[in-house]
Amino acid sequence: MHIRRQTPFDAAKLAELMKEAGVELLLASTRHNTRYLTGGYYYPLYMWDAHARRTQYLSFVCIPRGSLDDSFFVGRPGEEEVMAEADAWPGLCYEAEKITSLSTAARTVEVLKERKLDALRIALELPSVPADVFGILKDQLPRAEFFDAVPIMDKLRAVKRPGEVKKIRDGTGRIQDALAAVLTSGREGLTTAEIANQAAKEFRKRDLHFLYALVCAGPGFFRAPSEKRIWRRNQVLHIDAGGMLDGYIVELCRMGCLGRPSSLAGDLLQGCRDLEKAVRDLLRPGVKACDVQQGANDFLDEYPLGAHGRFIAHGIGMVHHEDPVINTNSGDLLQEGMILSIEMEFLHDEAGHVKIENMVEITGTGNELLSSPGNDWYLSNP
Amino acid sequence: MHIRRQTPFDAAKLAELMKEAGVELLLASTRHNTRYLTGGYYYPLYMWDAHARRTQYLSFVCIPRGSLDDSFFVGRPGEEEVMAEADAWPGLCYEAEKITSLSTAARTVEVLKERKLDALRIALELPSVPADVFGILKDQLPRAEFFDAVPIMDKLRAVKRPGEVKKIRDGTGRIQDALAAVLTSGREGLTTAEIANQAAKEFRKRDLHFLYALVCAGPGFFRAPSEKRIWRRNQVLHIDAGGMLDGYIVELCRMGCLGRPSSLAGDLLQGCRDLEKAVRDLLRPGVKACDVQQGANDFLDEYPLGAHGRFIAHGIGMVHHEDPVINTNSGDLLQEGMILSIEMEFLHDEAGHVKIENMVEITGTGNELLSSPGNDWYLSNP
Repeated sequence: MHIRRQTPFDAAKLAELMKEAGVELLLASTRHNTRYLTGGYYYPLYMWDAHARRTQYLSFVCIPRGSLDDSFFVGRPGEEEVMAEADAWPGLCYEAEKITSLSTAARTVEVLKERKLDALRIALELPSVPADVFGILKDQLPRAEFFDAVPIMDKLRAVKRPGEVKKIRDGTGRIQDALAAVLTSGREGLTTAEIANQAAKEFRKRDLHFLYALVCAGPGFFRAPSEKRIWRRNQVLHIDAGGMLDGYIVELCRMGCLGRPSSLAGDLLQGCRDLEKAVRDLLRPGVKACDVQQGANDFLDEYPLGAHGRFIAHGIGMVHHEDPVINTNSGDLLQEGMILSIEMEFLHDEAGHVKIENMVEITGTGNELLSSPGNDWYLSNP
Repeated sequence: MHIRRQTPFDAAKLAELMKEAGVELLLASTRHNTRYLTGGYYYPLYMWDAHARRTQYLSFVCIPRGSLDDSFFVGRPGEEEVMAEADAWPGLCYEAEKITSLSTAARTVEVLKERKLDALRIALELPSVPADVFGILKDQLPRAEFFDAVPIMDKLRAVKRPGEVKKIRDGTGRIQDALAAVLTSGREGLTTAEIANQAAKEFRKRDLHFLYALVCAGPGFFRAPSEKRIWRRNQVLHIDAGGMLDGYIVELCRMGCLGRPSSLAGDLLQGCRDLEKAVRDLLRPGVKACDVQQGANDFLDEYPLGAHGRFIAHGIGMVHHEDPVINTNSGDLLQEGMILSIEMEFLHDEAGHVKIENMVEITGTGNELLSSPGNDWYLSNP
């Protein structure tokens, strides 16, 4: 039997987070958290919702607090070999009898009982554990109590390791290049659906798994790609796009114009840059996330076009919006190694939706953009 | 308010399936079923698990049995505009207060109560509705009874419309070309992980959303891409790969060899072809699915290398394994417009895992392959 003792995650931090949350056993099941905890994932489903017939793929990474070496994995038939090949943690693998989520749940219950782990306070990813699976666990583990594992896992993943930052930086660079290619080859009459398709093609050329491209041809604020909406001369257009590289999500927003942007549009883009500068002056370890949002809001209160402006930011990594939370109520502190998506935007009836989104890393002393700035217009037919 | 009366699906059939299942209200929530029922989906999540911070994306398509015009959609803030732009059915859209699955669930409960639909027999997709959402529904709708909607929806989608067949045929052709490109450009020393990456690149070149490529370098049956496993001269290799085109899943398996296959390997591939012919002679409307599996099993019982052989088949469409079910216990009948994936394989210790997988359409009188056969060796350095 393959046993790997070294965890790919910070085990001491996980134990502390479990203790804080008052839970004794973690059962993680989402793809991102399984990858994070084990370093592997059942291959055919690496990038994909597993819609199997009348069931879903399900596995559990089971970690008892304070006895890491007793951790185990419950997967479907054939998974032990896949986990061993990938040298995935923890190595100890039980297989369900059948390829169904209910069979994985039943096997998990059996193992928990055998190992006398069936009367614990158990953290599960409740926003994604399927209803039928949870029904079995509650029914078959009557002495257990169930809690949400998501805050624990979000906190565990909040500070990125250097290898994670490297992947995110790589992916961000690819989006930057892809969006520049689309926005400098525009022509009058393209629909926003066609432009979104071009973005997808440019992602694929760069081996970046395409997730979405919101395209907004101003004036107007509608962003879902549409066959009815057209990019016209002298109109601005933004592409706000996301992709995935090796399990990490990256996103950027860039501005284009067919011909020359109006001076109003220019002022709004300058607003994005000024807002970004004001925000980036605040981003460093130890700063409260609420103070970042407040700083941005205060900046907009004083700014000439600030009534049209908005600042949104969030942590990003294996999940699109993850810790730290950035709003005026957040209790989170910025830490070195966190990755943020920062979104500066102005919505103006006349000019449209002018928006820049960048990815930044919190460094030891401040912050660093993860791609070349790209905060100017990309012009087609200038 | 946007109202669209014409359903993109067979409403009479859905009503009949709901009646058979004894349910009065359908609440569909998966991406594939939402797309199938409405013709639209919340754009940024078209191809993607929505892992939002500590929640999931959730919407419900709500269809009361026998009163189709009272159907409605409950989505997140901003979705009404997206549904209207896509002219999605049913048009009547309620929006949750917040961008969380629990908020969508709460809004759904409110609407069901307002419309006096809260004491019905309700079908939900229990293998994918999140545990926390189901908790709210059970708690807030104490007079309702809950059933699994998946069998209803699987049966509804089993016979494909011409537009669906066209997309699946298009996607199948793209995989065929992608796999041919990889398998004719092999070289000694490539790892199976490198070959899977090449397959992903060839998919992307053809604008096919890459899902997975299982790669098996024989002898040996391990198929998850590995950096430790190498394609060697005179060894056979299969790529069993899947992709998605506009929401439809397509998959094929093709055989390659570096140099010349052994005569044993040749016999095994001939076995795949002979088995396929035997199976395709059975595939036509009105045939019982169990008889197809039995026919394949009987063929293998008589075939010289049959002890190494296996036949697997399944319906495929928006879900990877969907109706009809093909095994010796299935009660399903083949119908015109069904799409099957048929998998013919021989596992031999000496030669490896020789496998052909094709997609076929059940036509009025028989069946048709959805791509050029591709059932011969693809040779590199012959």
